[in-house]
Amino acid sequence: MLRDGALNGKTIIVTGGGTGLGKSISRYLIQLGANVTICSRRQAVIDETARELTEEASQLTGAGQVLAVACDVRNPEQIENVMAETIARFGQIDGLLNNSAGNFISPTERLSYKAFDTIVDIVLRGTYYFTLAVGKYWIDNNIKGTVLNISTTYATTGSGYVVPSAVAKGGALIMTKSLAAEWGKYGIRLNAIAPGPFPTKGAWDRLFPEPLASMMDPTSRIPLKRVGEHGELANLAAFLLSDYSGYITGESITIDGGEVLAAGEFSHLEKVTNDQWDMIEQTIKQANKASKGQA
Amino acid sequence: MLRDGALNGKTIIVTGGGTGLGKSISRYLIQLGANVTICSRRQAVIDETARELTEEASQLTGAGQVLAVACDVRNPEQIENVMAETIARFGQIDGLLNNSAGNFISPTERLSYKAFDTIVDIVLRGTYYFTLAVGKYWIDNNIKGTVLNISTTYATTGSGYVVPSAVAKGGALIMTKSLAAEWGKYGIRLNAIAPGPFPTKGAWDRLFPEPLASMMDPTSRIPLKRVGEHGELANLAAFLLSDYSGYITGESITIDGGEVLAAGEFSHLEKVTNDQWDMIEQTIKQANKASKGQA
Amino acid sequence: MLRDGALNGKTIIVTGGGTGLGKSISRYLIQLGANVTICSRRQAVIDETARELTEEASQLTGAGQVLAVACDVRNPEQIENVMAETIARFGQIDGLLNNSAGNFISPTERLSYKAFDTIVDIVLRGTYYFTLAVGKYWIDNNIKGTVLNISTTYATTGSGYVVPSAVAKGGALIMTKSLAAEWGKYGIRLNAIAPGPFPTKGAWDRLFPEPLASMMDPTSRIPLKRVGEHGELANLAAFLLSDYSGYITGESITIDGGEVLAAGEFSHLEKVTNDQWDMIEQTIKQANKASKGQA
Amino acid sequence: MLRDGALNGKTIIVTGGGTGLGKSISRYLIQLGANVTICSRRQAVIDETARELTEEASQLTGAGQVLAVACDVRNPEQIENVMAETIARFGQIDGLLNNSAGNFISPTERLSYKAFDTIVDIVLRGTYYFTLAVGKYWIDNNIKGTVLNISTTYATTGSGYVVPSAVAKGGALIMTKSLAAEWGKYGIRLNAIAPGPFPTKGAWDRLFPEPLASMMDPTSRIPLKRVGEHGELANLAAFLLSDYSGYITGESITIDGGEVLAAGEFSHLEKVTNDQWDMIEQTIKQANKASKGQA
Repeated sequence: MLRDGALNGKTIIVTGGGTGLGKSISRYLIQLGANVTICSRRQAVIDETARELTEEASQLTGAGQVLAVACDVRNPEQIENVMAETIARFGQIDGLLNNSAGNFISPTERLSYKAFDTIVDIVLRGTYYFTLAVGKYWIDNNIKGTVLNISTTYATTGSGYVVPSAVAKGGALIMTKSLAAEWGKYGIRLNAIAPGPFPTKGAWDRLFPEPLASMMDPTSRIPLKRVGEHGELANLAAFLLSDYSGYITGESITIDGGEVLAAGEFSHLEKVTNDQWDMIEQTIKQANKASKGQA
Repeated sequence: MLRDGALNGKTIIVTGGGTGLGKSISRYLIQLGANVTICSRRQAVIDETARELTEEASQLTGAGQVLAVACDVRNPEQIENVMAETIARFGQIDGLLNNSAGNFISPTERLSYKAFDTIVDIVLRGTYYFTLAVGKYWIDNNIKGTVLNISTTYATTGSGYVVPSAVAKGGALIMTKSLAAEWGKYGIRLNAIAPGPFPTKGAWDRLFPEPLASMMDPTSRIPLKRVGEHGELANLAAFLLSDYSGYITGESITIDGGEVLAAGEFSHLEKVTNDQWDMIEQTIKQANKASKGQA
Repeated sequence: MLRDGALNGKTIIVTGGGTGLGKSISRYLIQLGANVTICSRRQAVIDETARELTEEASQLTGAGQVLAVACDVRNPEQIENVMAETIARFGQIDGLLNNSAGNFISPTERLSYKAFDTIVDIVLRGTYYFTLAVGKYWIDNNIKGTVLNISTTYATTGSGYVVPSAVAKGGALIMTKSLAAEWGKYGIRLNAIAPGPFPTKGAWDRLFPEPLASMMDPTSRIPLKRVGEHGELANLAAFLLSDYSGYITGESITIDGGEVLAAGEFSHLEKVTNDQWDMIEQTIKQANKASKGQA
Repeated sequence: MLRDGALNGKTIIVTGGGTGLGKSISRYLIQLGANVTICSRRQAVIDETARELTEEASQLTGAGQVLAVACDVRNPEQIENVMAETIARFGQIDGLLNNSAGNFISPTERLSYKAFDTIVDIVLRGTYYFTLAVGKYWIDNNIKGTVLNISTTYATTGSGYVVPSAVAKGGALIMTKSLAAEWGKYGIRLNAIAPGPFPTKGAWDRLFPEPLASMMDPTSRIPLKRVGEHGELANLAAFLLSDYSGYITGESITIDGGEVLAAGEFSHLEKVTNDQWDMIEQTIKQANKASKGQA
């Protein structure tokens, strides 16, 4: 949706950029002119993605370039290596997209301490390590950089059955707000996106037999009655990483088709039919009349 | 739960105090030693409630007294009359419980402008009129009074099918926070309670035939798997109206058995059985193994 | 920031569109190809704005057209007239921007019941009247329209000294969420923008002598150390009114340079200098050493 | 404030129970009849506290008993040892108060990765380890236990200059909500308290020379113009750990004298004097008159 060249001259690091949404967003950033360093733990995966995105970019006018650097975001040295290689190749770093994630869908009482740690370390520790490293670099070099964190609606509402992820995403969201407050004076902005369901081909939800697959399908619970498309998320991400959003900081934007609004105490009455509403109106009118008669 | 005499010497006005939760709270405030003025539009209803509560109080040691004054909270003169009669009888006013309410359960597009206004005027206008009147009286007389508003979880989340009520409760909640910020310097506190389902005998939900009655029944959606008891709400209300909560202001406390937490994106997986969780664990392990094999 | 023609074929009604931010947003919508009906109470003001915007549009390729219809948003008949004239001129209505507002900056205890009502009626009643009217039209005609409300950060946080406005904006925000939940099934979206300070030439803050003028100046309290520019708000508004935001609904997006983050309990420590931080570090280290010595 | 014996027969573990607020709350729980296990890293400190609290309890009728067990909450074995010793001594565990904390007041860019980890590990990891351990025990033994977490207002708002603590408290708050949603079906409740300033004698804020000491003093920023008293926090904590709050779960209650409400965009106008307000009213009236004259 943004104008061509909207990200010209920007260099952005995307963690977890090798697959899924991270890859889709990287593709769009490159189209808009940004250079992108994608990183994830598996070199083979990001190499293949880099090859694919580079080929696509070669078909376009004004597209940016791609660099793939392996990185475990729980390891500060590897983070600093990604930064060094990015600066060596592209000159400087302007944006960071914290997108690496992991999740266990499970009753919490089935999890070990270690399982809990695994998710929190990738999602939360990785996010604050990378943000701390890039933030220090920006402050030292007087660069007005911007961070975008892929959050989730349950970073605010909480959610059962994904508790380690909820804990980690909840912590990362507060980091976003806290550093936006503190580092605003340096011109550094931090924002987040809280996506609802944006399915990726081959994701875990296709693995399940019925009735689980249907249980996992959120479509009927979403007010707009559909899941999201990767391009919709990429639009929002590009906007928040661009200078066009220069007065937005410390904000988390939900893009979920209204899924989180299901919290509304009576919103489930959507299932009531028109005829039933007619009957309800009648019943209430009669009750009111009776009540006034008594009074 | 509070100690006997916790509200000794306090005089509290309860709007909508003639029936339902307002009556239950009034009863408990009186037991704790408060004098209570109950008001609602229908004199006969509050007279009967006053008679009943007075009789109950006469059985107890240290209970307060009851006054019934009819009042349409949309009418400033009637509000000022309630205040004048309360002061004449009990000497001063220490607390205000904004509890009057009205609601239409309906698709919003079926409502007229006037129907929408009716709810907003009772719930929101009535609340700010009464609070403004009592606040001016407290500031003029240097009384450190306290306001408690009966809110709802959808004052924060929003909810379909009760939109005029949601709008009005949403506005009243922000009034609570705003005046707590502004009037704190006068020692005036304002708080709110956001109750989940606390059914009253004879309430509208008993009126409906199936399948509507079941649809209206929130029990299965509530984490604690039960509705609330009036005494539980009265405990919280008395605490917030007492000096024991003297450092709490501008706060809305949810008491809903966790109902609002249903917003959590995966919390509905509660329906998955233990055997299904075993199967899910197996499926994920195999998928991870396959994925690692590829990589 | 959006691509040319991003709003081609859309017709949008902007209340309060004659001046200030409403005018700036209208200008940008027209540039992007939308037809815009601006309305406010004073015909002369909107006529002049319509003339100006029409002239500007005539210099551009692909710009939309402007219609000016006087309207008091507290009056349903006038609202329906705006809709009828818009449909007569442009064929249908696709979007509604609720932007009309009013405010008193005053200690609340200085306000009369009537003054309080005046603000609530313009800001809240006007918003739900217009939204109800347009929503019914969209449902009847099977149009997937979108509503955007100009909210404020204090619709969520509350604020002293602007309490009627806070109450009204708080109610309107919950309407946004509630109807997004309920009307999502019709493809209708509702969102809000919560702007921080976006000064308009000639606005009231220029009227004041010192020290009030400085007190009103928020710059130093804002993490990004500047006020917003109209174009930044217009960008966000256009995005939310366009199809590019098609999976965002029920959301309120804050654009305030981080102003609201000042809530953070320690964020005011921004005033501590580097030398003072050095001293603090020393003091804490010594205290820790002493404490360990004791233990 | 609670009735005598309100916690009779309950056993509660308090982490960080040796000093400060943890000690004050422990004292009150014991007075109400609860047995309390206090734990912290330093055995000498908790032994001394246990001695003091035991002596005080011996003066009272109906008070509970105290056990002191050293524990680093980052160590699962030590957590399980605290639980085993508590069960050995008191029979079972009914409540857990996660109160252990640590904090660095510092610009974030001055922190090392390790310093950041230190706070997150104590505050967040310690909280989820202990909660996971106790939760599994409750589910296995069919005990309807309750968890109370000492949170902070910046767990929701974020805050600069205490970012590791904000991140950790933010994560712990979402854990509270998530597990309340998931474990409600077992009758397990989890809640949090977000306290404002409750100073402890000898705390770090007394260490600083001017002008830092004044900068750290929140009194003028708090609507109620005072800091909190330990007894006020203890009242709220005891209520949330008691059965009287049996329908409250997943909630975080702020007790801060309104400090967090300072976020309100205009709430700082508190500094405007009465005479200045008179002048403002005059100025606005004249401006309105002039504006109408033009129109």
